[in-house]
Amino acid sequence: MSKLRVQSFSVSLDGYGAGPRQSLTTPMGEGGMGLHEWVFATRTGRQMFGQDGGETGVDDDFVARGFENLGAWILGRNMFGPVRGPWADESWRGWWGENPPYHTPVFVLTNHARRPLEMAGGTTFHFVTDGIESALRQAKAAAGGRDIRLGGGVGTIRQYLEARLIDELHLVISPVLLGSGESLFAGIDLALLGYRCLHHVPGIRAMHVVLGKQ
Amino acid sequence: MSKLRVQSFSVSLDGYGAGPRQSLTTPMGEGGMGLHEWVFATRTGRQMFGQDGGETGVDDDFVARGFENLGAWILGRNMFGPVRGPWADESWRGWWGENPPYHTPVFVLTNHARRPLEMAGGTTFHFVTDGIESALRQAKAAAGGRDIRLGGGVGTIRQYLEARLIDELHLVISPVLLGSGESLFAGIDLALLGYRCLHHVPGIRAMHVVLGKQ
Repeated sequence: MSKLRVQSFSVSLDGYGAGPRQSLTTPMGEGGMGLHEWVFATRTGRQMFGQDGGETGVDDDFVARGFENLGAWILGRNMFGPVRGPWADESWRGWWGENPPYHTPVFVLTNHARRPLEMAGGTTFHFVTDGIESALRQAKAAAGGRDIRLGGGVGTIRQYLEARLIDELHLVISPVLLGSGESLFAGIDLALLGYRCLHHVPGIRAMHVVLGKQ
Repeated sequence: MSKLRVQSFSVSLDGYGAGPRQSLTTPMGEGGMGLHEWVFATRTGRQMFGQDGGETGVDDDFVARGFENLGAWILGRNMFGPVRGPWADESWRGWWGENPPYHTPVFVLTNHARRPLEMAGGTTFHFVTDGIESALRQAKAAAGGRDIRLGGGVGTIRQYLEARLIDELHLVISPVLLGSGESLFAGIDLALLGYRCLHHVPGIRAMHVVLGKQ
């Protein structure tokens, strides 16, 4: 059965999954890129951006594993772009250029309807306006039995956690302090929701933990 | 010069340094003992409780290092005991029995005066009623040039962090979720206060990070 998985989701030591003030030039928020340095050091992470080299090992294995057996993705709107409010036009086509790194149907949560957007390489963005459960249903129907990866951002993951819909949550604790930004944990009692830490693996540049439901 | 150091301070993945509802039977709060399992697995941690065996390696090195070059300790009152409000009598003598594991002067922050309490093994508890800066001054005077260790709890560490008085903060990220309790980070912008992660070391059962001021 399809699982809903969060993979390689980085949080700072102080619990932030993104820095404050996301914008066109700071898609992860201010300071937020530091969360992901461990990814950019890996071979798989570098390949995603068309670069050679990079480290193998635990960190790389986790990045690679995050792309295995995926049939669909779900993204919050802010992960798709910095546009807020109604779509003024259809000129924004994502952060990733014409061949995004998804290669599956991608369901984008938004309050504002928009026609599906077919990109190169097998990625089609579908805009879902009727909530997280609908997006998950549509993603499962599209995934053909494979898993669905929930890409983020923080607000979207929080919504799915609170609804207890996430089957596997791979968090990566990055050794940075952000000080402010979007907190993954504030006001959510993961223990009460039934989540616990299933295993933890020291990485090269960060700590990997996998959370799941009891 | 004496440094003010926090050592081997464990926080959960969701940022809690203690569980909720501290009491006589749950001195770390509910679930809070899970934060410290990594300590109890180490040789030095076991020695502190009079037990043989235990692991050596990174985790043990950090525990041992936390006791080096100390001339005094500072503790919040809740770390000294579960008593709240004025001292009804002097019968509470700490969690640790007649020979506490400090072996130096220990300055306990409280709103309620009490006579110094001399224990076996070189530990004397001094009760400080005029604030964190006074406690630090007194500890420095007593430490004879050696360092001062700030033992906690969470509220006390937060006060010293906000006053930018901590020179070195060794945090240990334990692979557990507490869900609620005392958050070390909530509402404190460590980056804005000038702290950053100086280094990080993967441990056997947890991740070690050392924070300091820029």
